[in-house]
Amino acid sequence: MRDVAVIGIGQTPIGELWDLSLRELGANALQQAALDAGIEKPDALFVANMLATRLSNQAHLGTLVADYSGWRGIEASTVEAACASGGMAFQVAVRSVASGMIDVAAVCGVEKMTDETTAQITSALATASDADFEGAHGASFVALNALIMRRYMHEYKVPHPVFGAFSINAHQNAVNNPNAMFRKAISQAIYDRAPMIADPINLYDSSPICDGAAAIIIAPMEMARRLNKPVIRVRASASATDTLALADRTQPLALEAAASSARKAYAQAGVQPADMDVFEVHDAFSIMSALSLEAAGFAAPGTAPYRAQDGEYRLDGKLPISTMGGLKGRGHPVGATGVYELVDLITQLRGEAGLNQVQGAALGMTQNIGGTGATVVTHILERTA
Amino acid sequence: MRDVAVIGIGQTPIGELWDLSLRELGANALQQAALDAGIEKPDALFVANMLATRLSNQAHLGTLVADYSGWRGIEASTVEAACASGGMAFQVAVRSVASGMIDVAAVCGVEKMTDETTAQITSALATASDADFEGAHGASFVALNALIMRRYMHEYKVPHPVFGAFSINAHQNAVNNPNAMFRKAISQAIYDRAPMIADPINLYDSSPICDGAAAIIIAPMEMARRLNKPVIRVRASASATDTLALADRTQPLALEAAASSARKAYAQAGVQPADMDVFEVHDAFSIMSALSLEAAGFAAPGTAPYRAQDGEYRLDGKLPISTMGGLKGRGHPVGATGVYELVDLITQLRGEAGLNQVQGAALGMTQNIGGTGATVVTHILERTA
Repeated sequence: MRDVAVIGIGQTPIGELWDLSLRELGANALQQAALDAGIEKPDALFVANMLATRLSNQAHLGTLVADYSGWRGIEASTVEAACASGGMAFQVAVRSVASGMIDVAAVCGVEKMTDETTAQITSALATASDADFEGAHGASFVALNALIMRRYMHEYKVPHPVFGAFSINAHQNAVNNPNAMFRKAISQAIYDRAPMIADPINLYDSSPICDGAAAIIIAPMEMARRLNKPVIRVRASASATDTLALADRTQPLALEAAASSARKAYAQAGVQPADMDVFEVHDAFSIMSALSLEAAGFAAPGTAPYRAQDGEYRLDGKLPISTMGGLKGRGHPVGATGVYELVDLITQLRGEAGLNQVQGAALGMTQNIGGTGATVVTHILERTA
Repeated sequence: MRDVAVIGIGQTPIGELWDLSLRELGANALQQAALDAGIEKPDALFVANMLATRLSNQAHLGTLVADYSGWRGIEASTVEAACASGGMAFQVAVRSVASGMIDVAAVCGVEKMTDETTAQITSALATASDADFEGAHGASFVALNALIMRRYMHEYKVPHPVFGAFSINAHQNAVNNPNAMFRKAISQAIYDRAPMIADPINLYDSSPICDGAAAIIIAPMEMARRLNKPVIRVRASASATDTLALADRTQPLALEAAASSARKAYAQAGVQPADMDVFEVHDAFSIMSALSLEAAGFAAPGTAPYRAQDGEYRLDGKLPISTMGGLKGRGHPVGATGVYELVDLITQLRGEAGLNQVQGAALGMTQNIGGTGATVVTHILERTA
């Protein structure tokens, strides 16, 4: 097993990118990453995508993006695990390089959601849940998360306004990220009077429908050391699963896959939650931020929203999260999100986060969640000398 | 890098399986494979699937099948590369085990095609081609293959009846395979008067629309050696890509990704085409059998159909292909096909192919093709002492 390190990153701005096709988005992010890494082409490309087959009539995206990137002939495939596709593609790539069977791998998360109607998008997103026992009965993805949030509010007696701290922090951090979709701060008052999407989830509790692509190039550690830039080492790569259907869980607030993948990751890296300088959380919904923080050991059950309110997760807090705007402020192109989370973390570890830089960030973690917590991928990365 | 070996296989019969859902098909094949391997559960599951998001409203299939198999909590993801999904998922699994980051991996190819209308299936299959430059213009997948076959017939002056040998051989071999969809031999006369699907591709030049699942469990070599059964070692795992769109190729008959992945595989294993005892070819269409055999170095360009006619690819020939019926006779549940090819090869190498056993089969190869040759995965497996 070889140590693996990041040698390049790239991303497109996130938004309603009607002038760019799927292949163009992917190639744009990859070309930036290849330029950053100083490589001509990788040995293999792993594309993370969830919706192209439905929303763009396009499967076989790995090969299409490889070809359009000018890399005809290399290995290519698509990895999918709903909204955890990005983290999962990165895990597959890390292991491929660690195996010694290939040297340089590229990971590209790409999603194009905004070309279709809202009804089509909502229905496509529902494929992340159990089609026969959830989707077929009209449970949209927001509705499922609303059930979890309502249960959390009941169980732990947390009033809705307390969750606002997650949204306010994410939008604040998006202001200085040129690639973010919403570069505008919001206040508690704006959060409190936002329209409901699926009660109790309001507009700011949700992340937007959007397009975007992010890319990462990885290589064996010894190759990364030869480059003249900060070496970002992959310290841990762990994933775990839970039931796909929410109703099958005995403890819907426990997010067991998040807890289990975090435990495995801490063990791999030999670190504790308290060691983390940055945590890119999967804040697709406010409730998911809370559950992920609690499952990963950063907060006791029922306390994360209050910690958010106390400022603990702000850039100047104890554990900065969503540092470049998160899924809410930066955007959530679903299949690409896990790669964006990693790119944001790498940006922090390299010290290239500009006005949002977390001072002294050396060790950080991402948690990428698919479905209502059915698949969770945890990565721990570290800047090394 | 650790050596990797197969420790278990399983499969469902292929057909129009209206009484079995996607999750049931997958779990059935996996449970057989786990029983065969003598394991309770793997560390990770890699599901190969192409069409579930469109035809069954179900993404996130890795986690769903893991849960339904009784393996809640393990790692799971879906790997897609159109009809090469199965081979690609196996490659990803092999590297994951080779990396040392996990020990036991399960691969499950599963596809459920027959619940929808032919129009919906045809349109879903077209997502394997270039959506913007092929699919959008109404080029079905059979139509694209028809263009290639017509070009081949023109270029090499091969009359249509010569291709019949591929279909006759595949159907003959399917007769003794209890899992095959069509267990009925056909004659040259039946082939010659078959109705056209897309001229010059007739009914028997094509593989059927069907449902099915196949599974393989792999582990490090040292673990496989401790089991009391033939050890099937993965000697080579190589893949390569070409342009997605047929019109972008300078030599549409060269199948460059097949040639390149075969070359890499031979180099990894240190073998030659002439060493191969069995070759599970991707005979989705007769023309693909010819192109794959020629690209992989088993026949000179323009000669494979004549070699088929001479009996070279029959069970008693020099290089038996489609030994359990191939995609034509056994069936072609698209995302699962690459795994079925491997299961058929492993069955031969284990000496468990019954009436279809290739005597002394010790070294064999599979080639799994996505799109019109856009992604090709080549595996070489060997029975070792």
